[in-house]
Amino acid sequence: MNHPFHILSSAQFDRKFLDYLAVLTDTIRRFNKSKEGSIYLKGLLAHKRAMLYFTQPSTRTFLSFQSACHILGISTHEIRDSSTSSERKGESIEDSLRTFSSYVDIIIMRTSTPGLCDRIAEYLDHTERPVPIINAGSGPDEHPTQALLDIYTLSRNFVKEGGLDGKTITLVGDLKRGRTVRSLAALLTNYQDVKLRFVSPESFRISEDLRQYLVKKGLDFVETTDFSGSLENTDAVYMTRVQDEYDVAGESAKVDYSQYHLTKDHLGILKDSAIIMHPLPRRQEIDPAIDKDPRAKYWRQERNGMWTRVALLTMIFGVDSQIVLPEL
Amino acid sequence: MNHPFHILSSAQFDRKFLDYLAVLTDTIRRFNKSKEGSIYLKGLLAHKRAMLYFTQPSTRTFLSFQSACHILGISTHEIRDSSTSSERKGESIEDSLRTFSSYVDIIIMRTSTPGLCDRIAEYLDHTERPVPIINAGSGPDEHPTQALLDIYTLSRNFVKEGGLDGKTITLVGDLKRGRTVRSLAALLTNYQDVKLRFVSPESFRISEDLRQYLVKKGLDFVETTDFSGSLENTDAVYMTRVQDEYDVAGESAKVDYSQYHLTKDHLGILKDSAIIMHPLPRRQEIDPAIDKDPRAKYWRQERNGMWTRVALLTMIFGVDSQIVLPEL
Amino acid sequence: MNHPFHILSSAQFDRKFLDYLAVLTDTIRRFNKSKEGSIYLKGLLAHKRAMLYFTQPSTRTFLSFQSACHILGISTHEIRDSSTSSERKGESIEDSLRTFSSYVDIIIMRTSTPGLCDRIAEYLDHTERPVPIINAGSGPDEHPTQALLDIYTLSRNFVKEGGLDGKTITLVGDLKRGRTVRSLAALLTNYQDVKLRFVSPESFRISEDLRQYLVKKGLDFVETTDFSGSLENTDAVYMTRVQDEYDVAGESAKVDYSQYHLTKDHLGILKDSAIIMHPLPRRQEIDPAIDKDPRAKYWRQERNGMWTRVALLTMIFGVDSQIVLPEL
Repeated sequence: MNHPFHILSSAQFDRKFLDYLAVLTDTIRRFNKSKEGSIYLKGLLAHKRAMLYFTQPSTRTFLSFQSACHILGISTHEIRDSSTSSERKGESIEDSLRTFSSYVDIIIMRTSTPGLCDRIAEYLDHTERPVPIINAGSGPDEHPTQALLDIYTLSRNFVKEGGLDGKTITLVGDLKRGRTVRSLAALLTNYQDVKLRFVSPESFRISEDLRQYLVKKGLDFVETTDFSGSLENTDAVYMTRVQDEYDVAGESAKVDYSQYHLTKDHLGILKDSAIIMHPLPRRQEIDPAIDKDPRAKYWRQERNGMWTRVALLTMIFGVDSQIVLPEL
Repeated sequence: MNHPFHILSSAQFDRKFLDYLAVLTDTIRRFNKSKEGSIYLKGLLAHKRAMLYFTQPSTRTFLSFQSACHILGISTHEIRDSSTSSERKGESIEDSLRTFSSYVDIIIMRTSTPGLCDRIAEYLDHTERPVPIINAGSGPDEHPTQALLDIYTLSRNFVKEGGLDGKTITLVGDLKRGRTVRSLAALLTNYQDVKLRFVSPESFRISEDLRQYLVKKGLDFVETTDFSGSLENTDAVYMTRVQDEYDVAGESAKVDYSQYHLTKDHLGILKDSAIIMHPLPRRQEIDPAIDKDPRAKYWRQERNGMWTRVALLTMIFGVDSQIVLPEL
Repeated sequence: MNHPFHILSSAQFDRKFLDYLAVLTDTIRRFNKSKEGSIYLKGLLAHKRAMLYFTQPSTRTFLSFQSACHILGISTHEIRDSSTSSERKGESIEDSLRTFSSYVDIIIMRTSTPGLCDRIAEYLDHTERPVPIINAGSGPDEHPTQALLDIYTLSRNFVKEGGLDGKTITLVGDLKRGRTVRSLAALLTNYQDVKLRFVSPESFRISEDLRQYLVKKGLDFVETTDFSGSLENTDAVYMTRVQDEYDVAGESAKVDYSQYHLTKDHLGILKDSAIIMHPLPRRQEIDPAIDKDPRAKYWRQERNGMWTRVALLTMIFGVDSQIVLPEL
């Protein structure tokens, strides 16, 4: 297994990596079921420190990574508001990040600037003290760890149905600006015979570069505005919210997004074995009454995010080899 | 001993619970006197994580709970400012709290919304992953852990005088809007022959529902505006500040609160065995020169808060049984 | 070795202390090279809690202290924004700090108010629960731990040249308002035959009280506006940024600070054995292209800050005696 140093893009993961990560995540979750196992995990990286540099608002991804760190004993620092930082004293972003690298062993970054993580990783690689960078969401372009948790959730739910190969996934909503869909679709090219249905308002269709990428990779996909029809015979429906924080001229208000809301009326269309996912947070895309339906997997998906990040951290620091079920 | 799951209201504690908590707190404090004991405590819940969700400003209660968590090895997350959170993305409060429950093992909440803690506890109880909720202050209505630390402070200071039964407690200040007084008075109904003196400006008298509750419980109490007179023959005087953050139309400015300030001139009136308490922060309610008087117990009361919360956390997680004095 | 309780001013350190701290820091850094050593360090103060009370913006010093605490296992609390605190409820600064002392074992303070740390230390010394105070920067007056890390960096780089005695140090920039230079110059009076060159615009010369102090101590120094000339035959050049946050009437804009920027053109003037330092953050004082020059030590200096603070904390808590190289 080729262990990653930086985590910058979902394009860096291959099938072998994804399968290994899933097994590793499963094993870690079993560890966590006992106090002894949890304490063992907490000793694995107790000598490490992480910086959570989240200058773009985030609750879920932040907490998920912070929990993942704490599960492994990693101490955490956080910067979530540049007003308390040296940036006010005119420091460059490179100097700020190099400073963090002086104090910590890994930097987990969420930023609204596309490409910044790559730039910083490249910069630090040429210093005396390179540290791993994890992209925890960079503007509209990448969110690789979200894609990992989505793949894990899909894989685990299809274990009895032979895995993710050959499945039909329906992705719904603001597909143009949602980076989760972008990263997930790219990762799905690692599987055999997966079929994608992109369902969105006309103005929020997937971007041209993603379309071309999928064509090049030979992935079978359709684009449509027909939500209800796309729910038939699908194995998973992946809902997303409108990304109006990226509005330039009120694009969101011009769309009737309510046509892309999953309601109890749709449940009859869905197969019994289908699963419902959402990267969260949600607004009205999924009626809360659906939460109790056994096919609703978004809360479990959320928690899976924490566990896949734990697994990823053990790989980055090379302690995944120490995770074998102990004889407790 | 019936162990609590959620801590929502001081009404849920009975005499047996209060007595047990006091003994447990004493034992924990003895542990803490040695490094070995402290390290033992820190291992008790080292596999747990807590969310401190404090959307209402608070320093003391926040730090007290955070310290209590750290003493037991519990990792902490905090949200103190909704501007960094998903609420900006239109998420419901239920979804936000359910998200926290995905990552942590307990949620400690302070909010300005009466009843919110109960609502969230009820909601989470019906999900796949209920976690305990502690109300750390909810607007003007409840502050149950403050009441616990107050009871502990009273009990411990009256050990030589036969305990809290039969004592006279004088509660002073903004009794209408101070949730500490409200929660404490309710808890005091668990003791025998306690007499309460409520001293306040006319406009800040205790609320009608508290008055009726105390009458129903048969508690002996008086209401008065006479501060100095109420200090005679009292066993404890509990000072509070004016709660002007709840002002609707400048109520506070209309009252001469200086008549309810404890000064050095009052010290002669107080019995030698009486104690002076205050939930802090204070403004001018107690002259700082009084801090050195041996009867001043508010700083110890503050620190007691940390220890009673440690005790409470061990009960919620069922590890109080592991707290017996080790042979060090 | 006389162990300090509070760390308030660089004036409190003597040569014996500085030499001991350097050896201790070296030893701690060796510990950290193995996982076993790191875990040992993390157990030394795992039963302690620290408050980082940083009401003046700071990234570097904050992270450095927070890391130092975590390296030793100390749990940390932080207050960086008074808007979430009890100060909004009208509490005095003494009461706020005494509250922190109820919950933690040490308070690390950064404030814009000169003298506040001393006042709080004095105040707490007269309470039942005094805790150590570390001044982590107090307005324009003191920054003692910065001076310690600077001394450590100088000493360690001159080990092969017989140490710091007899060396020439060139200090450049806004010498009037930069507290680092102030604290460092004061500490350098502990060494034999050190020569200082103060290089600054006329309007930013060292303050009169520092000048008189150095004269009284018999330190050999010159003041000049000639930057290039001062780089010849110097053993260390210590660059600083303009401290325009202390501008009263736009003083900074009136100065051509570019004449005090170190560029690649200057590198030929510097001796091969000379070192380049900077307390960071920098703006344009040092061309980033210089970072790769082996004489550039400011990034290492930054990391040294973390390690000297670790050493200092072990001394304050008296566990430095437990730091001997274990047989790993």
